[in-house]
Amino acid sequence: MFKQITFIGFGLIGSSLARAVIEKNLSDNVVCVDQSQDVCDRVLAMGLADEATTDPALGVQGSDLVILCTPVGVMGKVAAQFAGHLENGCIVTDVGSVKNSVIKALQPRLSNRVHLVPAHPIAGTEFSGPENGFAELFINRWCILTPQPHTELQAIEKITALWEACGSNVEIMEPEHHDLVLGITSHLPHLIAYTIVGTANDLEDDIKSEVIKFSASGFRDFTRIASSDPTMWRDVFLNNKDAVLEMLQRFSEDLTALQKAIRKDDGDYLYQHFSETRDIRNEIIDAGQADYVYPDED
Amino acid sequence: MFKQITFIGFGLIGSSLARAVIEKNLSDNVVCVDQSQDVCDRVLAMGLADEATTDPALGVQGSDLVILCTPVGVMGKVAAQFAGHLENGCIVTDVGSVKNSVIKALQPRLSNRVHLVPAHPIAGTEFSGPENGFAELFINRWCILTPQPHTELQAIEKITALWEACGSNVEIMEPEHHDLVLGITSHLPHLIAYTIVGTANDLEDDIKSEVIKFSASGFRDFTRIASSDPTMWRDVFLNNKDAVLEMLQRFSEDLTALQKAIRKDDGDYLYQHFSETRDIRNEIIDAGQADYVYPDED
Repeated sequence: MFKQITFIGFGLIGSSLARAVIEKNLSDNVVCVDQSQDVCDRVLAMGLADEATTDPALGVQGSDLVILCTPVGVMGKVAAQFAGHLENGCIVTDVGSVKNSVIKALQPRLSNRVHLVPAHPIAGTEFSGPENGFAELFINRWCILTPQPHTELQAIEKITALWEACGSNVEIMEPEHHDLVLGITSHLPHLIAYTIVGTANDLEDDIKSEVIKFSASGFRDFTRIASSDPTMWRDVFLNNKDAVLEMLQRFSEDLTALQKAIRKDDGDYLYQHFSETRDIRNEIIDAGQADYVYPDED
Repeated sequence: MFKQITFIGFGLIGSSLARAVIEKNLSDNVVCVDQSQDVCDRVLAMGLADEATTDPALGVQGSDLVILCTPVGVMGKVAAQFAGHLENGCIVTDVGSVKNSVIKALQPRLSNRVHLVPAHPIAGTEFSGPENGFAELFINRWCILTPQPHTELQAIEKITALWEACGSNVEIMEPEHHDLVLGITSHLPHLIAYTIVGTANDLEDDIKSEVIKFSASGFRDFTRIASSDPTMWRDVFLNNKDAVLEMLQRFSEDLTALQKAIRKDDGDYLYQHFSETRDIRNEIIDAGQADYVYPDED
């Protein structure tokens, strides 16, 4: 499918995609670019790339596909380093969790001799690093592409084919719309989880040790979400600020209403609200999105 | 272990405990009391009780153990119905998620010829009803007992033995302390999950359908928590009001601080906060509390 694919950033997602590419034989050659020489060494030792370098300009040479798998906050800077070294006709894509700011960071740096096809595989675990990746991560998961109107159809089709070969279902979306939908389904839940685990972390020592000892199911789920990669999530919130703050505002209003109902002993309001949320779970199960098992859950 | 156990309320927890009692042969006789005649019929058809009745006064007769498995909000009312019909020396216990208000509701209604040993098994799923129970629900889970100072040691020991026979680890705690710990580990997470799923539910129709379609892992976890039994959770919040409002206040302050950091592009604050929450997850894994799998996850 490709002559040479360069992965820039070789963490959980990059290494999982590289594993799938190797397993499905989607590229003659695989190149790893990572800022850490230690990661480069480990990737070569695990046989996940044919070559590895810390230099993006060197790593993209001769590649017909470059996949940015770094935190979204550094993509612009990295692109500035390699943009002048891309082959004519090369496709540049990414796996970032926000799309509008990534396009704004990448597009101005790329010449019109290369094709930008932004992508976001909705898949992941709370673990980080190349050792924790696995080729099956993307099977039956959505991958959202957010190409711009001027993008060549052939480049979009090649990226679609890549993700479908890895087992994903591909959907095309406007970048702003992607950021709003993910703001509520992924970014806000992570922010909330980080908050509540932090609140528990700030408790007096005696009660904190019991919170850990008796962590009930609700809290345990939150701690898993809140153990996700700090750099990645810092960048997500800084780069999807508007959508996250908009959703957070709505959430805060709803939380205040429930808080008031508890304070006023308004059992009818609570019951009504808790009944409605049950329905949306059933719709998600019907949509086939509730069957995925994290590696630490089986 | 017991001559006759009466379960009052035969939902997920009651039916799971009855299954464990039958499987481990912990009682000669099992009686089901449920306000629904339909539930009584189904329980008998499933072979989960020897007798079933909708009348609590009738159901407790001849029993040496009565286990209240109703939502906590109705326990006082139900106790008023059966209290005069208890055998001398009978032990009364419960499985409610709050303890202080349950003691206040039950103790004044019970004579000093019977023993109250309040209990809370920290176990459950988002499913309700006797069909969804299973005997293994309590294995390796904590069960917290909150007896009062005057309670006879022998009664506490019998309830301890019951839960240990079902596979649980038993811990004794002050009721107020229990309510505070569970306020942060269970009640607040449920309130937050109910809120965010409600926020999504209120979105405009076009984006709502995509929220369901592309529900990422964070949101999916929240919808599972938010599909828990509405009556049970309404009662929890009304009966653990002080602790929940206290924890909610702390949570809101922390959320406001993160919101401000996002608005001000304070990446250092976000990174610092997200790094700290990772540690508490590792402590929970070390404490052996992160290995439990919900029935819908495998």
